[in-house]
Amino acid sequence: MFLATVRVTLKPTVNDPQGLTIARALASLGFDSVEGVRAGKFIEITLDEAERSEAEKHVIEMCEKLLANPVIERYSFDLNPA
Amino acid sequence: MFLATVRVTLKPTVNDPQGLTIARALASLGFDSVEGVRAGKFIEITLDEAERSEAEKHVIEMCEKLLANPVIERYSFDLNPA
Repeated sequence: MFLATVRVTLKPTVNDPQGLTIARALASLGFDSVEGVRAGKFIEITLDEAERSEAEKHVIEMCEKLLANPVIERYSFDLNPA
Repeated sequence: MFLATVRVTLKPTVNDPQGLTIARALASLGFDSVEGVRAGKFIEITLDEAERSEAEKHVIEMCEKLLANPVIERYSFDLNPA
């Protein structure tokens, strides 16, 4: 069993209205040291796989087919025994 | 300058319809090793702070006041010089 923790974020050049809204909300709460905010998705996937290499291959496929939009997003993940 | 990477996830006992939907979509794509999926938020915050301890204190405040709903969510974060 493996636990994959996937992070999907917008590419740096893509406009991020959700992040801008969070940044403005933080500023209005008095957090004046905030320089920028980028919002993304965090996905934890429990996988019933015996081999780490198989699990890794499948997580990459999942990211490219469903979890991330490769045109505007990038992804990274960690894989740990669960 | 620090970069805080914040992960906000639903508490384990809270129902996660977004995660269930992702799990079903992955199953329908043929990923039959998926045992479970939990969906959450990933937020990157750039902070103009000199002291690590101050930056950490502010990120905790941000999470508790705005980024996470402590009734149903929990959060964790990493803080790295940027």
